[in-house]
Amino acid sequence: MKNFNPVRGCSEYMPRQAAIRENVKRTILNSYQANGYNLITTPILENLELLSSSDGGDNLRLMFKTIKRGEKLDLTKPNLSEQDIVEEGLRYDLTVPLARFFANNREKLPTPFKSIQIDYSFRAERPQKGRERQFIQCDIDVFGDSTIFAELDLLYTVIQTYEAVGLDNLTVKINHREILNAIVLFAGFKPEEISTICVTLDKLDKIAVSGVVMELIEKGFDTDKINKLVDIIEDISANGLVAAKKYGNLDNVVDEIGFLIGTLNTLFKKHTIKFDISIVRGQGYYTGAVFEVYTDGFSGAIGGGGRYDKMLEKFTGTSCPAVGFGLGFEPVCLLVEQKLKGSLTNKLALIYEQDDNIFEVYRIKEELKQKYSVSLFLKQKNMKNFYEKIKAVADYTISVKDYLENKPVKQLIN
Amino acid sequence: MKNFNPVRGCSEYMPRQAAIRENVKRTILNSYQANGYNLITTPILENLELLSSSDGGDNLRLMFKTIKRGEKLDLTKPNLSEQDIVEEGLRYDLTVPLARFFANNREKLPTPFKSIQIDYSFRAERPQKGRERQFIQCDIDVFGDSTIFAELDLLYTVIQTYEAVGLDNLTVKINHREILNAIVLFAGFKPEEISTICVTLDKLDKIAVSGVVMELIEKGFDTDKINKLVDIIEDISANGLVAAKKYGNLDNVVDEIGFLIGTLNTLFKKHTIKFDISIVRGQGYYTGAVFEVYTDGFSGAIGGGGRYDKMLEKFTGTSCPAVGFGLGFEPVCLLVEQKLKGSLTNKLALIYEQDDNIFEVYRIKEELKQKYSVSLFLKQKNMKNFYEKIKAVADYTISVKDYLENKPVKQLIN
Repeated sequence: MKNFNPVRGCSEYMPRQAAIRENVKRTILNSYQANGYNLITTPILENLELLSSSDGGDNLRLMFKTIKRGEKLDLTKPNLSEQDIVEEGLRYDLTVPLARFFANNREKLPTPFKSIQIDYSFRAERPQKGRERQFIQCDIDVFGDSTIFAELDLLYTVIQTYEAVGLDNLTVKINHREILNAIVLFAGFKPEEISTICVTLDKLDKIAVSGVVMELIEKGFDTDKINKLVDIIEDISANGLVAAKKYGNLDNVVDEIGFLIGTLNTLFKKHTIKFDISIVRGQGYYTGAVFEVYTDGFSGAIGGGGRYDKMLEKFTGTSCPAVGFGLGFEPVCLLVEQKLKGSLTNKLALIYEQDDNIFEVYRIKEELKQKYSVSLFLKQKNMKNFYEKIKAVADYTISVKDYLENKPVKQLIN
Repeated sequence: MKNFNPVRGCSEYMPRQAAIRENVKRTILNSYQANGYNLITTPILENLELLSSSDGGDNLRLMFKTIKRGEKLDLTKPNLSEQDIVEEGLRYDLTVPLARFFANNREKLPTPFKSIQIDYSFRAERPQKGRERQFIQCDIDVFGDSTIFAELDLLYTVIQTYEAVGLDNLTVKINHREILNAIVLFAGFKPEEISTICVTLDKLDKIAVSGVVMELIEKGFDTDKINKLVDIIEDISANGLVAAKKYGNLDNVVDEIGFLIGTLNTLFKKHTIKFDISIVRGQGYYTGAVFEVYTDGFSGAIGGGGRYDKMLEKFTGTSCPAVGFGLGFEPVCLLVEQKLKGSLTNKLALIYEQDDNIFEVYRIKEELKQKYSVSLFLKQKNMKNFYEKIKAVADYTISVKDYLENKPVKQLIN
């Protein structure tokens, strides 16, 4: 072996970065838990049939699959297909395993059930910056509550969680799939065209109205309908949520979204919570409110989610309303790292010599542990090189001798 | 889909159990970190060549492997072998990835480097109670310290960590591979026989001396040598570590192990730290001290480790001493769960009604969050059924109305 890099598309994390990531994860979990959500854990290995039967879209193509083991793997079989050699899949998200978990344990769980999952998912994406093949997802979901109070509970928890990791100036953009559906139909498109039109509308913030028009023309749609749709979008963008009522039987939806936005704005005065007709969210399974969170210093969304009332029925046979949010762990870690600039930990290297009384050494270690994480290091010959390297794992240092002479601890990083 | 169970050999965890497991994990990590060890993370997917080139033994047979994706998977190739269709492996332990990580980042890391890894490994074991195919390992390792101070630092941290999760009455049994090697040779066996004889000696606590004798006879060894080996073991068992000095050039080893045991016994008066000639540890890679930890209420070891000075050289080409410990997460969780008897969490269900002022509801939620994790629940029609089910996720409950009338919170579990 000459190449010791991690496998393609996966990262390994050095002590400082691993510590920050662990702290972020812990802060997120603490905030989710304080708001009454319940941690559950499901396996990374998941039933292939289940994974493949979902609305996974592109994710199905990116799935890691394990091969059959032992005698089950018969490579001599004629006309071998992939199905003959695969056993399980690595999950590509936490939502499908959650649906399976809920179906499996429904009898034992209260309704509504509020879950937390913070764990790994896998997708064989083309390796690129910020996109890992093994990545952490931080999901909360509410199962069994069809009221807008579920969205309120979820977004309240989400906003508090972003605050807990130190992010200010949040913008929460909220839309509703029924409003999107209604305006597309009102413009004259057919129900079966809603999905492809929404895929284009999803790009509104990137390619602007002109780009949307162009893409819809390219897709072969009628210019009259496109122009009408653009007029509607511009009307709603200019006149706000209430303007949407004109375009369909949307009174209830508009009132609910209005209540959600109004309540959140009162509860969180320093953030901006607003209706935004351009929020679509990719996944096909959303049925109601959809939302994305943004903050200064990061161009894309730092999290998003929505209501998906039909998904559970597919798995369980009985319907169950659901709403969920996925907090973007990677962008949040990136933002937290920028803020901390490496000065997070409180680690001290305590240097001792072979001749020091070993009980004295451990007594001093315990004293210093009141204030620091304390790592013992035996004095080395080349201490200059040592102090240089130790910066990777410690911020402070002192020797047993200096400590006994009441000298102060030295800072390793300035 | 009719079957919603997790995949064969893997478990999912309901809220109470998941919360306990998370707390145990966190306590272990806190204690490791307080003692100056550094969390790192490495990917679950690992280079197959690397995984296969290690002393993995049986683990190699139990490895999960992923299939090639897209065009790389050619099932029409004649005489297809497993190698033609596999891409990566799921790691079966954290030691091999750690060795790769160290080789990859050696220039940036101090020596000694003290690492923490708390993460998943995978083995396709025959499903059985207490043996998961996806399981958590909690390892600490010291790389680059050949002195007995490394074992002392490691075991000091380990004992404090078991104490932190609430385990008392620890017995730490320590042996040394050089002592084992010496007595086997002294009894007249050949160097190449040491390994198979140690495999049998490893069972001493389960099958006693008579069982060991029988197995060695079955393996075809000479009874004179076997009897001599038994005499030596009985001598050392009766007369302690110093008796070992008779059987080889073991003065240094015996003195070091004596120092380790003596120092730990002075530092941790309430536990038992002792030499035990029957501790072997399965893995072939150990070269020096080996140890296992036991406690009341669990028959097997709750963790173990040892020195493996030759392993790094295999990967990096340059030698690097190493000593590590794996804390048994599953037995520890089992013991903690028994102690807690389910009464760990501090979760409260706050019941509100549609007519309650929503800002009042959230104000009360924040007040109660000073003391509890607070989950909001809209009042339901069938509250009896609700209270029954809510026990899965909450210990206490109160309604907004009762709270405003200064009534006390109700306990859900007695």
